[in-house]
Amino acid sequence: MCLAFVGGEMKIVDMSHDLSMLTPFWAGNPEFNFTILKRNNTAGGFWYESNAFQTAEHGGTHLDSPSHFYQGSWRTQDIPIKNLFGPGVVINVTDKVLTNPDYRVKTSDLTHWEANYGRIPRNAVVIMNSGWQYKFPNKNSVFNTSDAEDPSTYHFPGWHEKAVQWLVDNRKVNIIGVDTPSTDYGQSKLFPVHVILGRHQISGLENVANLDNVPTHGAIIYAPVVKLYDGSGGPARVFATYDDAAVVCSASRTSLGISFVLLLQCVIFLVG
Amino acid sequence: MCLAFVGGEMKIVDMSHDLSMLTPFWAGNPEFNFTILKRNNTAGGFWYESNAFQTAEHGGTHLDSPSHFYQGSWRTQDIPIKNLFGPGVVINVTDKVLTNPDYRVKTSDLTHWEANYGRIPRNAVVIMNSGWQYKFPNKNSVFNTSDAEDPSTYHFPGWHEKAVQWLVDNRKVNIIGVDTPSTDYGQSKLFPVHVILGRHQISGLENVANLDNVPTHGAIIYAPVVKLYDGSGGPARVFATYDDAAVVCSASRTSLGISFVLLLQCVIFLVG
Repeated sequence: MCLAFVGGEMKIVDMSHDLSMLTPFWAGNPEFNFTILKRNNTAGGFWYESNAFQTAEHGGTHLDSPSHFYQGSWRTQDIPIKNLFGPGVVINVTDKVLTNPDYRVKTSDLTHWEANYGRIPRNAVVIMNSGWQYKFPNKNSVFNTSDAEDPSTYHFPGWHEKAVQWLVDNRKVNIIGVDTPSTDYGQSKLFPVHVILGRHQISGLENVANLDNVPTHGAIIYAPVVKLYDGSGGPARVFATYDDAAVVCSASRTSLGISFVLLLQCVIFLVG
Repeated sequence: MCLAFVGGEMKIVDMSHDLSMLTPFWAGNPEFNFTILKRNNTAGGFWYESNAFQTAEHGGTHLDSPSHFYQGSWRTQDIPIKNLFGPGVVINVTDKVLTNPDYRVKTSDLTHWEANYGRIPRNAVVIMNSGWQYKFPNKNSVFNTSDAEDPSTYHFPGWHEKAVQWLVDNRKVNIIGVDTPSTDYGQSKLFPVHVILGRHQISGLENVANLDNVPTHGAIIYAPVVKLYDGSGGPARVFATYDDAAVVCSASRTSLGISFVLLLQCVIFLVG
């Protein structure tokens, strides 16, 4: 059993871009379509509006199911709900991306994070923050090209396969994400990150928004994807929650410092 | 500030049905469509699968935005993320529905819940459990009719407008939901519940699954709807989280009993 003593106020951060006619899709995907079915007053005296929409799975803020690049892995409905969330780990590479849009997150970016915040927690949701969110929804800006119809011209950052393999081998992660259109960088031809994720039943998360408002550590990130039967992914309303004054005990119960804070909070509570 | 002392293990419950060709839609909606775009090995040596889908907003497990029945209210992207979750309140009416499929949740069902579990918390997500989840995805069973193309023949339970108005007047709720296709019951002609919800910027939640696995009180229910621009609703991957041994302090800090449990847990923790 792990005990946690939590104070402060719960915060929630919306991490999804709008899904709309402006949403940028990878070249070759069918167009997004939004159809107004009804939008009028009715004979019954009440207002009624209703719509339908058509979308490819892999545009906007969305999840890649493991099956996307690995035959026989989980399709969207197969992913257990407990694998669709976890402790948030935000890897900030905005400085590096400023000078190199083809940057790929390295293992050293992960060990640097751990040096500051401790070991990446079990079942983590590890997301690259490259500053890309501000380019949405302009398609040429998002793909960083003058010809968004030609993927060979895409230049945006993603993950290096060595860093992803390091996470697979040394930590336990539920989801690996990016604020760009692909977990593999724009110039990738063989998509090794996607393949590693699929082989290990890890989901990908792409085009994530608002990372600048998510704590670097200490949040819980949720990626509840539409439960699309037989999907290789789907739109997800991604969000984070965190306590703005959280104090969480260590599972090992060895930290005297934390115990002292707990005791202090207990006393404050009981006399308060 | 509210302090909470939480023990036990966090649980998560998936509350969405699959979205698929089998999903039952209200008569008059366009057909759900799922299109396989690619599902094959590639020249690069890796597997690749990808799909597109088309859906009306109001089928399967989905959210009704306030704009659905009330002009000028929030469309899907307008709903603040903080209004898409809250303390779960499950109103079990399975016994009543067994003898009356046209049952509507009454104010007395709410006051009965409060007599057992205390005042409905602020920002609650209040959901009717009528036992309807087991009828999915059979369309005639879900609409409880021999002719699902004729809505005048629908017989399923929902909310009475007086109970919803009582919640609006006396409590603060974020979402009102059902495990059936509509917050108004199947025989409704003027949809007064939908209109009240829309007028008060409250979202509806329909075709919710797995309510028998959600605690009657004490869970947090999330209804993260796809962030569909200009939507009157959309598919939502609904889920609940709860701590299987939660002890939460009262905001008023007046309960000696809770204080004692807290003190006890503090002591257990510190000497443990």
